[in-house]
Amino acid sequence: MEVAKQFGDVVVVAPDRPQSGMGHAITIGKPLRLNAVHLFGDIEVYQCNGTPVDCVKLGVDKILHKKPDFCFSGVNHGSNSSINVIYSGTMSAAMEASIEGIPAAGFSYLDYAFEADFSLSKQVIHTIIDALIHKKLPNKALYNINIPNVPLDKFKGIKICRQANAKWKENFIERIDPHGKKYYWLTGEFVNLDKGKDTDVWALQHHYASVVPVQYDLTDYKTLKKH
Amino acid sequence: MEVAKQFGDVVVVAPDRPQSGMGHAITIGKPLRLNAVHLFGDIEVYQCNGTPVDCVKLGVDKILHKKPDFCFSGVNHGSNSSINVIYSGTMSAAMEASIEGIPAAGFSYLDYAFEADFSLSKQVIHTIIDALIHKKLPNKALYNINIPNVPLDKFKGIKICRQANAKWKENFIERIDPHGKKYYWLTGEFVNLDKGKDTDVWALQHHYASVVPVQYDLTDYKTLKKH
Repeated sequence: MEVAKQFGDVVVVAPDRPQSGMGHAITIGKPLRLNAVHLFGDIEVYQCNGTPVDCVKLGVDKILHKKPDFCFSGVNHGSNSSINVIYSGTMSAAMEASIEGIPAAGFSYLDYAFEADFSLSKQVIHTIIDALIHKKLPNKALYNINIPNVPLDKFKGIKICRQANAKWKENFIERIDPHGKKYYWLTGEFVNLDKGKDTDVWALQHHYASVVPVQYDLTDYKTLKKH
Repeated sequence: MEVAKQFGDVVVVAPDRPQSGMGHAITIGKPLRLNAVHLFGDIEVYQCNGTPVDCVKLGVDKILHKKPDFCFSGVNHGSNSSINVIYSGTMSAAMEASIEGIPAAGFSYLDYAFEADFSLSKQVIHTIIDALIHKKLPNKALYNINIPNVPLDKFKGIKICRQANAKWKENFIERIDPHGKKYYWLTGEFVNLDKGKDTDVWALQHHYASVVPVQYDLTDYKTLKKH
């Protein structure tokens, strides 16, 4: 937001609570609320009780009343590289914009700390927004950008990549509540199944920021052709 | 379930409440519960307080303690064709299985009625499960199956398709609560942007059941090649 406002007018619509792992969820069974808040000086900011995808839908339809030139989502704390794109509320918001014909990008920074140092992120985001607004992008343009947690002098640059083939190996932690009943906490271990050097996971491990162009036609054309 | 049990042992893990529009959400911030229930005679059934994706993760890790031969998700009420695959809890559960290396299929029937007539669905699902178990499927095999709401004698057969390019045009309904504050209900109009006769939407409109092979590498390779 701080970076984006150097390029034009910014309106922020954000969920009113953490949305980790929210994926492409939308809110159907309960009403949605929008509240104007004044957190960031002269920038118009709204909070919404819905999901990240709800924020995009409501923002376009009820706040802007038109498509914005771009939709930027994030900065997310933690990686949305590889398979995480599927679980990510941040990327789903950007994808929703793309579905609606708004060029979009989601940004994630590989540091979970609340007080994380965003100076590298700001630099990368500035470079990318600058490149995007000077390009003739298709309406559906959609990018998944991840920024490594490395000191500025170790940063190698920005790399266009494909999504690494990886998965989470589940490892639920089982506990017993005070009433003697079991409950489970979802945890997991990230397993990279991909040896390629052209993937987002490889780029991040080697101190690059990764940029994956994304699309949402999930058809498996290889399998389709065999039928 | 009723159909699947004709082919082998079935274990059901299902969310304990409706999950429409849940997408690929997972539960991180609260503990998960599993309860054995006895709703369907001799079939092992568990209910879970999490999302459809949580159900798959917990089912594999804490109930089966191994990968099942297949994961079948649904039957969902309402279409998961086209862009709906992105918002669908049913399809996200099937996709989660595929990510974990379990061949999977999600089934949806285009009838929202609680008392819908599932005889056509049963017939289609039987044909498809029968075909799947006699095929040497890759671990990641994943299918999105939609069944039209037509009388048996109007049904034309099963058609392999691609995902139609479509979107939802939002149309939030604005209301005022008893305290004078605005709230919004998400509604929308489905807009098919795709003229192709090889799409799932076309097939369903023409009384076919649609089968779309699905994958979850969201990389936009066309755009990637241009860089």
